[in-house]
Amino acid sequence: MPRPILDGFRQYLPILQWAKTYDRETATSDIVAAVIVTIMLIPQSLAYALLAGLPAEMGLYASIAPLLLYAIFGTSRALAVGPVAVVSLMTAAAIGNLGLTDPASIALAAITLAFISGLILTVLGLFKLGFLANFLSHPVIAGFITASGILIATSQLKHIFGVEAHGHTLLGLLGSLFSHLGEANGTTLWMGMITTAFLFWVRKGLKPLLISRGLSPRMADIGAKAGPVAAVAVTILLTWGFALDKQGVKIVGEVPMGLPPLSLPSLSPALWSQLFMSALLISIIGFVESVSVAQTLAAKRRQRISPDQELIGLGTSNIGAAVTGGFPVTGGFSRSVVNFDAGAETPAAGAYTAVGILIATLVLTPLLYFLPKATLAATIIVAVLSLVDFSILKKAWGYSKVDFAAVAATILLTLGFGVEMGVSAGVLISIGLHLYRTSRPHVAEVGLVPGTQHFRNINRHKVETRPHLVTLRVDESLYFANARFLEDYVLNRVAGDTALRHVVLHFAAVNEVDLSALETLEELNKRLSETGIKLHLSEVKGPVMDRLNRSHLLSDLSGEVFLSQYDAWARLTTPVSVAS
Amino acid sequence: MPRPILDGFRQYLPILQWAKTYDRETATSDIVAAVIVTIMLIPQSLAYALLAGLPAEMGLYASIAPLLLYAIFGTSRALAVGPVAVVSLMTAAAIGNLGLTDPASIALAAITLAFISGLILTVLGLFKLGFLANFLSHPVIAGFITASGILIATSQLKHIFGVEAHGHTLLGLLGSLFSHLGEANGTTLWMGMITTAFLFWVRKGLKPLLISRGLSPRMADIGAKAGPVAAVAVTILLTWGFALDKQGVKIVGEVPMGLPPLSLPSLSPALWSQLFMSALLISIIGFVESVSVAQTLAAKRRQRISPDQELIGLGTSNIGAAVTGGFPVTGGFSRSVVNFDAGAETPAAGAYTAVGILIATLVLTPLLYFLPKATLAATIIVAVLSLVDFSILKKAWGYSKVDFAAVAATILLTLGFGVEMGVSAGVLISIGLHLYRTSRPHVAEVGLVPGTQHFRNINRHKVETRPHLVTLRVDESLYFANARFLEDYVLNRVAGDTALRHVVLHFAAVNEVDLSALETLEELNKRLSETGIKLHLSEVKGPVMDRLNRSHLLSDLSGEVFLSQYDAWARLTTPVSVAS
Repeated sequence: MPRPILDGFRQYLPILQWAKTYDRETATSDIVAAVIVTIMLIPQSLAYALLAGLPAEMGLYASIAPLLLYAIFGTSRALAVGPVAVVSLMTAAAIGNLGLTDPASIALAAITLAFISGLILTVLGLFKLGFLANFLSHPVIAGFITASGILIATSQLKHIFGVEAHGHTLLGLLGSLFSHLGEANGTTLWMGMITTAFLFWVRKGLKPLLISRGLSPRMADIGAKAGPVAAVAVTILLTWGFALDKQGVKIVGEVPMGLPPLSLPSLSPALWSQLFMSALLISIIGFVESVSVAQTLAAKRRQRISPDQELIGLGTSNIGAAVTGGFPVTGGFSRSVVNFDAGAETPAAGAYTAVGILIATLVLTPLLYFLPKATLAATIIVAVLSLVDFSILKKAWGYSKVDFAAVAATILLTLGFGVEMGVSAGVLISIGLHLYRTSRPHVAEVGLVPGTQHFRNINRHKVETRPHLVTLRVDESLYFANARFLEDYVLNRVAGDTALRHVVLHFAAVNEVDLSALETLEELNKRLSETGIKLHLSEVKGPVMDRLNRSHLLSDLSGEVFLSQYDAWARLTTPVSVAS
Repeated sequence: MPRPILDGFRQYLPILQWAKTYDRETATSDIVAAVIVTIMLIPQSLAYALLAGLPAEMGLYASIAPLLLYAIFGTSRALAVGPVAVVSLMTAAAIGNLGLTDPASIALAAITLAFISGLILTVLGLFKLGFLANFLSHPVIAGFITASGILIATSQLKHIFGVEAHGHTLLGLLGSLFSHLGEANGTTLWMGMITTAFLFWVRKGLKPLLISRGLSPRMADIGAKAGPVAAVAVTILLTWGFALDKQGVKIVGEVPMGLPPLSLPSLSPALWSQLFMSALLISIIGFVESVSVAQTLAAKRRQRISPDQELIGLGTSNIGAAVTGGFPVTGGFSRSVVNFDAGAETPAAGAYTAVGILIATLVLTPLLYFLPKATLAATIIVAVLSLVDFSILKKAWGYSKVDFAAVAATILLTLGFGVEMGVSAGVLISIGLHLYRTSRPHVAEVGLVPGTQHFRNINRHKVETRPHLVTLRVDESLYFANARFLEDYVLNRVAGDTALRHVVLHFAAVNEVDLSALETLEELNKRLSETGIKLHLSEVKGPVMDRLNRSHLLSDLSGEVFLSQYDAWARLTTPVSVAS
């Protein structure tokens, strides 16, 4: 019976879904998109390899196999996979931690990093652990991306000035830059500044210009995305024509021509343990970035992506990068948008792009000899400054001081201590603040809204109350972190209130009662009944009730459990004869 | 105006509250309790110093200044502070990490550990951070204490056998013990086994015997607690009389006579950074243990303790231990119960106990020369086996598999990897499991319970529903970890349901909407309205509404916000003319 086995595999091969209806028309759309994305990707791939501190050709290698593998295993129809800014910066930071100087060891470390990251992503996908990425809150991601953009742009200034500078923090980078400023190369600086200005203009001004010349907005947008290619071509010609490399302009130099090499990651346990945490962070950040791009694009065409399968798609892409001389990759925002806008309809567009980059690797690499590093730095600077967006700070400040604290801390820690510290701290701060918030829950004393069966906070609404009855609505699940808080709250509320006979805990907002909280409730019941006060529960939800039924609490409870708060009110405010 | 300043200090000096009404009668009760506790504490102090791997006299020193300082700064009327089993084991583990061999360095490390721990506790108290201890869930604490009891008992077996053995895990200790079993000393083994058996009998059998001889149950209980003193006296006499130390019975040897020495902690930053995590764990465990003892005893007399002030009380006690040659201390369970049962009414009883131990240090130490280490080991074994209680496993299994996982993991990790790993993992597992649970919240589709205004789960109750209206009750606060889950849930529910026109999110159980969740709700609102479905909210709580009012969600919402779910039902199920 081969069917069920095939069905089991089928879920891991999204290509089987779209390939069977693939026709010539779809292929045409995909090929057009692929040509445009290829033109855009060549300078980007080189630039991000430079950002990661690796030889330029590794950027090209990382844009071939990963695209092919994603076309097989990925679920997004438009995602373009390859080296991206933030992940390249994190790769630089991870390798920087090792303190290597030998280029071969550095390349091997990058390959190993991609391999470990690919394994992590694939395993997470097979175990359907994609939800783990949810623990990075939106404000933390936004803060991290903004701070990374600043770090990346700053790290590229050295190429604009033509000096050596190092560092992985904002102060470190700026300090190193300033101390070498005296060695700046005039020609490089002029070329770098003009290229940067040109690329900014391309971004802002070229699109309106092309539209005014009669291009459709979509084509104008794509045309504007080709600006970096023009900058690359012109600066190569200038450098070659005027022999600017003899005047100190640093160039990319010889880029090996030919197929990507087959490479193997290091299997040294020492290297793996040194790189593991970095690979984990790169995996998480890469996945979160990629999934949000994929979801945005899928929503526009009413398609859905599968986060767990995306993990497998990205995981195999990274393993592919590792065995073909590349470095960590993920889905990139701008290239995916270009791919989508240019009409890509299936992941086959990515496969055609891979072929395009492969041809470039086989044929065009000699042309890149005179490409100034300053040009690549300018493309990076212009690309990443669009990531920098401080509006999240304003939005968070207006909405919630806790979210603001998380985003501000993430930005400051990323700038001050580097990307790895920044993103780790962001996750811990998000979780810590959430736990802090739930450890001191909101508890409201509620009364009956007249003429209804509805109960609201006595401090916010005009409601009926009775002196012998207090109803407390606990606005949080009860678990170990807040169990003692509730006990203290109730005991403080009842202390000295001599008229009180009944305490009702309104459990509509209690979604969980863990064992610690159960013990606290048992204790509270005992203490209250010692002072002649009965403890009741109301509106206990099904799942919570199921669990309480397995404990002694309900049989020991001095009061009752009411289906609704109104039942509790009706029963406890109507005088009933003892006999009834 | 000295009053307000004094009032400011007053909150940190609970002694001012009870000292002004202190009279002769109270003093008599306190002194009686102190005499009994002193007799009990002498062997305990020596034994726990041995457990911590320190000279016996350090146990006595750690039982003087801390008791005096707790009498001034502590809020419990009956808590007895000093070296306790679990904290002593953790001290041994912390010092073991350093790999020291020189006795003076070991003592200095213990003193420094007490000092850092004292600072941590005091600072936490001054910043009112006592709630942090709540992040240790009850099952984790119970599991940790049980596993620690087993480790402690196992670690003492070497003294019963009279061999050398080391290790900080169960397998390590047993392995080391078995490999040295050939060197066991017969005399020591006999004495150790008989002492252990005697002490077990004292615990179980002496109290009924004393009661049958006419003692009151309270006095019989206290008499039984003096059993270890009898064992100490008899074994000293035997060892001295038969010169058993010449037959290989290891004895305590010379214990310096005199006042506790003034000592200073090391100020070496390297040592501090090595000890900091251990000191933090010791502080948390010590605090949790002590506060639960103090709360239990306070509740019996309708008194309250202040957890934040307890931190200051324990913090100053540990600093006191550090400057008088002691090691980390906390409130002990059995000695506090004895103190309470013996009639201690104020913390002055602790101060009198301190005087008692001081007199012992000045006068009795020569008598301890011939005390066999096996006797001390027997007292420890018998004392800690009462901590071992696996019933928490059964209770947790019956109530919640998640709680069971936390307690089982804590026990296994503590036994397998030592106390520090065990307690750290316990905290992380508790938090991780809680986050996992809240990241996949329970969402119930609800309908109207006929004849009421109350809504319950359609799968659990007989309720009314309408095809064009779906009400989803979200049983969890919405925050970054579950925001995407809700979006997926709602979109999957509405997909393909062509009759649907209204989705109401019933927010009675939503206690928080953070910025990530807000963005998700905005996205959900947009997606639903694109498919012609209106999104409504009902029973949004005050604090959540305040926050949503600061966002664009409410103005962009395609539907309405209803005060109660019944309002939403009434409005959306009654056909209203378009004009109304």
